[in-house]
Amino acid sequence: MRNTEYLLYKKFIEEHLLDFLPEIDHKSIVVYEAMKYSLSAGGKRLRPALLLGACEFCGGDIRGALPYACAIEYIHTYSLIHDDLPAMDNDVLRRGMPTNHIVFGDAIAILAGDGLLSSAFEAMSKDLLLYFDDMANLKKRVRALYEIAKGSGCRGMIAGQIADVEAEGKQCSREMLDYIHCNKTGALITAAVKAGAHIGGAGGDMLMNLTDYAENLGLAFQIADDILDVCGDENEMGKKPGADCERNKSTYPGLYGLDESRKRVSELTSTALKVLSPYYDNAEFFTSVATELATRAS
Amino acid sequence: MRNTEYLLYKKFIEEHLLDFLPEIDHKSIVVYEAMKYSLSAGGKRLRPALLLGACEFCGGDIRGALPYACAIEYIHTYSLIHDDLPAMDNDVLRRGMPTNHIVFGDAIAILAGDGLLSSAFEAMSKDLLLYFDDMANLKKRVRALYEIAKGSGCRGMIAGQIADVEAEGKQCSREMLDYIHCNKTGALITAAVKAGAHIGGAGGDMLMNLTDYAENLGLAFQIADDILDVCGDENEMGKKPGADCERNKSTYPGLYGLDESRKRVSELTSTALKVLSPYYDNAEFFTSVATELATRAS
Repeated sequence: MRNTEYLLYKKFIEEHLLDFLPEIDHKSIVVYEAMKYSLSAGGKRLRPALLLGACEFCGGDIRGALPYACAIEYIHTYSLIHDDLPAMDNDVLRRGMPTNHIVFGDAIAILAGDGLLSSAFEAMSKDLLLYFDDMANLKKRVRALYEIAKGSGCRGMIAGQIADVEAEGKQCSREMLDYIHCNKTGALITAAVKAGAHIGGAGGDMLMNLTDYAENLGLAFQIADDILDVCGDENEMGKKPGADCERNKSTYPGLYGLDESRKRVSELTSTALKVLSPYYDNAEFFTSVATELATRAS
Repeated sequence: MRNTEYLLYKKFIEEHLLDFLPEIDHKSIVVYEAMKYSLSAGGKRLRPALLLGACEFCGGDIRGALPYACAIEYIHTYSLIHDDLPAMDNDVLRRGMPTNHIVFGDAIAILAGDGLLSSAFEAMSKDLLLYFDDMANLKKRVRALYEIAKGSGCRGMIAGQIADVEAEGKQCSREMLDYIHCNKTGALITAAVKAGAHIGGAGGDMLMNLTDYAENLGLAFQIADDILDVCGDENEMGKKPGADCERNKSTYPGLYGLDESRKRVSELTSTALKVLSPYYDNAEFFTSVATELATRAS
């Protein structure tokens, strides 16, 4: 990402990413080390950046949204740690580094994932306690918490992961593939944007338009990722391309070919940009994110 | 448990235990089936019963505490599913039935655990939305949510699980063993009592005394469990006794022998009962629970 606001958000998140984990306890420090290992392994920080971007776009202060931004990165990171386990995708590399279970063993990796998911909710619920004298802001934050819980749960991210596991090695319909993508990747991206918008104080049309933007962006992002898995550069990706194909995963390029997949990314990106047209004067962050994510796969 | 209130709470919980899971989605129904399988496998329902008991004891309505009671049982159940995985304790039986991963496979079991943990927080945060016009109750529930998040997190239950994994096969100090027990089992039991007390409106001394009670009860409960693992009945336990010893787990009976362990259970139970003495007229539920749990191991 080259957008200046994005880079500032990313820097801000990375500076504070460990601040909302529970305090270190030396008797069980390995869970902290394992969580920190995966949190510090880089990545785009797309979800927390979108959360902060949405908050600021809607008139909120990004400092107040930080616990939620970090929480959503904890949730994304836990999902990667569990996804990489031998029982799941059995990946040994992530972002160019050995995966969590390769370094810490399967048992600690399972618990580090559980720990990150728990820490996300601990951080957000602890934040709520700070707003007992500020009811308007307390309500905004409860709404954000609920969006994140829903987006990461069994009708969101986990639904997508389950359907993905179940579809492995099978012929997959377009409807099912959209379902997997929309949930596995899209739900948390949408939750990030909606949570940020809630904290920023958005309602009505603006919330609806941002949700629409996020849903299109999420799907475009996942298809672009599938395209990169076919023809991306190993160094840039930090893992071997072709893993989806080896694992018999259903992907857009696998089902429809590269050209059709690129066309779909471009259509989804156009739709994402179009819904933001009422706010073009102010929406450069969002339009840049959508355009840059689409360009990766072109 | 034979206490009448306990049995009523247990019945109430079991009648409503699935009510707070997200609605079934047929495209990812297997996660629902796997969660339901473990939730419906029986068990004492100790944590949710304590939560409802504490709520009622403090003057609250147990119907309003139900989402939190179910959430804490979801969290307890997720921890059992993940604990039983081959990478962790590798257990094939739980409560007399094949463990989750034996029935659904490791990948689905990991995701079912993640799903239950997520559903717990989704249920509680959804409940908060219902109290936007009732600030006093909203605050009580936010406090309950935070207690549960903390108790199940990296300074609570997960800390105990990590220390337990790390201690396997090693000589363990009494301090470390207390740490494992207090966190692995005690933290969620304490969180249940505190969350119920918050929802019921307790503050000050009563909250402190109930916390004290719960901490002693939690440790007594875990030592009693270790004693049962040595000399319990397979049919009653629903799993093979002697598993801790086989796995080289540090336990009270292993370190101090059965007599000393029974003495400690009895001391902890006495302390638990003593802190409740100001409320004896009204505390039969709590005193029965402590006495009955201790009797199991005598």
